[in-house]
Amino acid sequence: MSIGIIGSGNVGGTLGTRWAQAGHQVIFGSRNPGSEEIQQLIAGSGGSQGRPARAASLADAVRSSEVLLLATPWPATKDVLQGLGDLAGKVLIDATNPLLPDLSGLALGTTTSAAEQVAGWAPGAKVVKAFNTVGFNIMADTAFGVDRPVMFYCGDDAASKQTVKPLVEQLEFQAVDAGPLAQARLLEPFALLWISLALVHGQGREMAFKLLRR
Amino acid sequence: MSIGIIGSGNVGGTLGTRWAQAGHQVIFGSRNPGSEEIQQLIAGSGGSQGRPARAASLADAVRSSEVLLLATPWPATKDVLQGLGDLAGKVLIDATNPLLPDLSGLALGTTTSAAEQVAGWAPGAKVVKAFNTVGFNIMADTAFGVDRPVMFYCGDDAASKQTVKPLVEQLEFQAVDAGPLAQARLLEPFALLWISLALVHGQGREMAFKLLRR
Repeated sequence: MSIGIIGSGNVGGTLGTRWAQAGHQVIFGSRNPGSEEIQQLIAGSGGSQGRPARAASLADAVRSSEVLLLATPWPATKDVLQGLGDLAGKVLIDATNPLLPDLSGLALGTTTSAAEQVAGWAPGAKVVKAFNTVGFNIMADTAFGVDRPVMFYCGDDAASKQTVKPLVEQLEFQAVDAGPLAQARLLEPFALLWISLALVHGQGREMAFKLLRR
Repeated sequence: MSIGIIGSGNVGGTLGTRWAQAGHQVIFGSRNPGSEEIQQLIAGSGGSQGRPARAASLADAVRSSEVLLLATPWPATKDVLQGLGDLAGKVLIDATNPLLPDLSGLALGTTTSAAEQVAGWAPGAKVVKAFNTVGFNIMADTAFGVDRPVMFYCGDDAASKQTVKPLVEQLEFQAVDAGPLAQARLLEPFALLWISLALVHGQGREMAFKLLRR
C-alpha cells in the first residue's frame, strides 16, 4: 500500500518508518523534503524486508498515496489540510489531538472533536481516527511482555476502516473498532488521559492500555 | 471503615455488597430504606468474613459514615446532594457520570466535569472521583484470568485519596492515582468510551482496561 505521511514529526516519523519496514511504500510529505530530518527518516526506514521510504512535497505525497496519515500539531492542522489540494476519496487517518499548549485540556470536546473538524476541512476524504491515543514510543515498540496495547480506530466509512485495520494490526496493536467518527469525542480525551498520566502524573511514557475480555 | 452508599442501584448495590463482604460497615442510604430492593441488598451482603449491611435514610447514612459513595443517576445528583445536610470533612467518592439520556455524549466535559460540579454542590466534602469507569458487572468480579482491570481515582486532597485507594485495591482493581479532581474531565469520557463500546459498539459488558507498564 502507498501511504503518505502528512506531518513527519515523532508520530508520523515513527509510523512511517514502521510501515516502510513492513513493506509499504511510504512517502514522507514535507514543506522541505530535502531537510536533514526527512533525510534521516528515509535513511532509517529500510528494514530487512522493507523498501526505503521517499520524501516529497505535501501535494506530491497526497497525489501518490492511497492512504494518508495526518499527524500534524493541532494548531497547524487546518492550514496544512487546506493546502493539500483535492482529497476526495482518500482514506485519511487522523492521528491528531486538539491539545491546549499546556496540556491542561482539549480545545475541542464533548460535542465535537478534532476528527470531525478535520473531516470538515478535508471535503470528500474518508477520515478514520486512529493512532492518537498513545505516545510514539509505544507505536515504535508495542511489546509489553506477551501483552499488546489496544489501538482504537473510528470512522463513518466501513470500507476505509477495513483499510486502516491491517495497518494497526501490522504494528502489533490490538485493533478495536470504536464506531463512528464522532467517537473521537471520547478517543481524544482518552489520549489526553495517556498524555497526562505519562507526562504529568508520574506514570512515565512506558505505559499503555490493554483491552481485557472474558 | 463505615461506608454510606448514596444511590443504591447497580453500582452502589454492587460496591456496597462487596465492601460489606470485605468486612466494612456498609449503610445503604435510601429515601425508602424499607423497600424490597434495599432489603434484598442487605440479605445478600453478609459474606463469610463480613458483617451484614444495614439500611438507613440518606441523612442517617451520611451521619453514620466516614466515607460516602455517590452513585446516583446524574439528573438526580444535585437534589440528592443538597438534601444530605452537612458534608464538611466527609470523604465523598464520586462514581457518577454526566451521561446524556441516550448515551450520545456527556452533559459536561472538557472545561469542567461532574466531579467538579459535585464538589461545588457538596461544600466542605473531600471529593474523590472513582468507580465511574467500568460497569457494575466488572466491579462485582474483577478477574480476567490473571489480569486485573485498572481503576483510576483522582482528587484534590491527598489524605482522602489515601483513604480511597485501599477501597479500590480490596476489590482487586489495579488502583492508579490520576491526579487532581479536574482529571475527571478525562475519566468521565473514559467511562463513556467503556459504556459505548459495551452497549452500542459490539464489545459487550465483559470488557475492561488494564494499564500495561514496562
